[in-house]
Amino acid sequence: MTHATARPVYFDCDTGIDDSLALAYLLSSPEIALVGVGTVSGNTSSAQAAVNTLGLLAVAGRTEVPVAVGAHDFLTHPYDGGAPHVHGDNGIGEVVLPPAARTPEDEDAARMLIRLSHEHAGDLEVIAVGPLTNLATALALDPTLPSRVAGVTVMGGAALVPGNITPVAEANIGNDPEAASATLSAGWPVTLVPLDVTMENVFDEDDRAALLTSDVPLARTVGEMLDFYFDFYVETYGERSSALHDPLAAAIAVGGIAAIVAPAVSVVVDTTAGPARGQTICDLRGQRRGSVDQPGATVRVVLGTDAPLAPHLIARMTGAGILVG
Amino acid sequence: MTHATARPVYFDCDTGIDDSLALAYLLSSPEIALVGVGTVSGNTSSAQAAVNTLGLLAVAGRTEVPVAVGAHDFLTHPYDGGAPHVHGDNGIGEVVLPPAARTPEDEDAARMLIRLSHEHAGDLEVIAVGPLTNLATALALDPTLPSRVAGVTVMGGAALVPGNITPVAEANIGNDPEAASATLSAGWPVTLVPLDVTMENVFDEDDRAALLTSDVPLARTVGEMLDFYFDFYVETYGERSSALHDPLAAAIAVGGIAAIVAPAVSVVVDTTAGPARGQTICDLRGQRRGSVDQPGATVRVVLGTDAPLAPHLIARMTGAGILVG
Repeated sequence: MTHATARPVYFDCDTGIDDSLALAYLLSSPEIALVGVGTVSGNTSSAQAAVNTLGLLAVAGRTEVPVAVGAHDFLTHPYDGGAPHVHGDNGIGEVVLPPAARTPEDEDAARMLIRLSHEHAGDLEVIAVGPLTNLATALALDPTLPSRVAGVTVMGGAALVPGNITPVAEANIGNDPEAASATLSAGWPVTLVPLDVTMENVFDEDDRAALLTSDVPLARTVGEMLDFYFDFYVETYGERSSALHDPLAAAIAVGGIAAIVAPAVSVVVDTTAGPARGQTICDLRGQRRGSVDQPGATVRVVLGTDAPLAPHLIARMTGAGILVG
Repeated sequence: MTHATARPVYFDCDTGIDDSLALAYLLSSPEIALVGVGTVSGNTSSAQAAVNTLGLLAVAGRTEVPVAVGAHDFLTHPYDGGAPHVHGDNGIGEVVLPPAARTPEDEDAARMLIRLSHEHAGDLEVIAVGPLTNLATALALDPTLPSRVAGVTVMGGAALVPGNITPVAEANIGNDPEAASATLSAGWPVTLVPLDVTMENVFDEDDRAALLTSDVPLARTVGEMLDFYFDFYVETYGERSSALHDPLAAAIAVGGIAAIVAPAVSVVVDTTAGPARGQTICDLRGQRRGSVDQPGATVRVVLGTDAPLAPHLIARMTGAGILVG
């Protein structure tokens, strides 16, 4: 399934319809090996996200991938029930998955991340597409964690576009600003994939049909989920379609999509109680004449990519990378 | 000079090189009558701004326009010395104006604004291109002020582009966030002209040459000031040129330039001590499918204009609207 040289990836998610797209993308990407999945509350609870993830892995026939439940509550405040209007009551658009035989690991997600960072020291890559509570918890448990991680790709934030839960805050960051602040300031190399690019990558009914008519069971299952997600985005885009938040972060992390405008700049998360709480304040002054890295900055902010994600995503999800049922 | 039907305008400024461009534009616009100018600290001190304004009015032969000195300090903190690296030590690029015979009024700027709002009740228009300290002070002195003002046009803020004094704060708003918050929430109709559009309107050496070779003394004087301003903007634009912040607000207020994308939306000024202090948080969610006004919103945020300002500005400044010396 994965190449002998596949890069080890820990995936942290709040599964979630677009998380499911990202998971399906990762499972069909030979460049990487999914060595563990941790769940966090966000789109749905961390417990439900684990149920969803295990179900999706079973549909894909990839039951070797361990899943650890992560934080239920955020660092400074309780989980608030997620986004059932976006992702459905069960997080995956009310699609009912066959029961999975495998159950979550005994360890929690933060400890799984730390363990994997030792097992794959220097090589482990982290892809986080939910609130950053597990990553911040792992950093608090083991401040040496960044030294063993090759890189972190985060779907989150909004640099020069509006937020999606407040005028300036995106949901993953806005749900747990303190965790985001800790994660983005930990010194490890972070690639931030914000709404600036994820909102520009859209999946439409033709794309969904390509999944629904696929021979690949997981592609069909995710295609079914998108029915619910498309309803939510009608108001945004004017037609049944959706943004591709989490799978874009996955594709950039894997290398299937290249970030061609991604300056490394100071990024500060607003953790005040004020109106900008949860904003990713990216210092993009001085970028008018071209992408300029700021000395010492450890966070790259993706503002432009080399190709639309949808065709690439469909090709992978419907291709030979997933077991055919 | 002005038409009998010219609309009465109170101009609040921190003169300043681009303030000088705005003043010259207003003096050459027959649609409006400049019934008073108030000064505020920002680019330079309010006292120096008054000296500069009186000098410019003298050069223009428009000594009938009264000038009132306004606030030296901001609402919650002292004036910090301005921006001599942008506007020069005297605020006008070290250009030395002939001494003006007229002196500032005895009243301060806030009281002048209140007085003018009675004299032109219902008709007075306010154009503010500096920190909003005087406007906030007037609102505090007389909360009925908005009922007598037809509209307020403010150069300030940054909606979907970086700030210019912090990653998210523009100088006029960031210098006195509390004053900006009071002004933008007062219920009067505000047109906010942010960096989103002012940075896209550029004046270059050819434009400057058109001023320097003009028969109009004020045009030549302002053209001389721009020499200093252009030096500052080389790093931003890659060549000697400048943004047209204040004159764009003036031109939009007068009607010489039309704001063709300007949704009325919730605008909140961040007055915390956090990293977003001074940001104009404009709720631009839901604008993807076209400009949509939010019910009850009293602040229009200008995001697009109908024509480049520079040619229009030059035509007015070098035309028949100013006394020829």
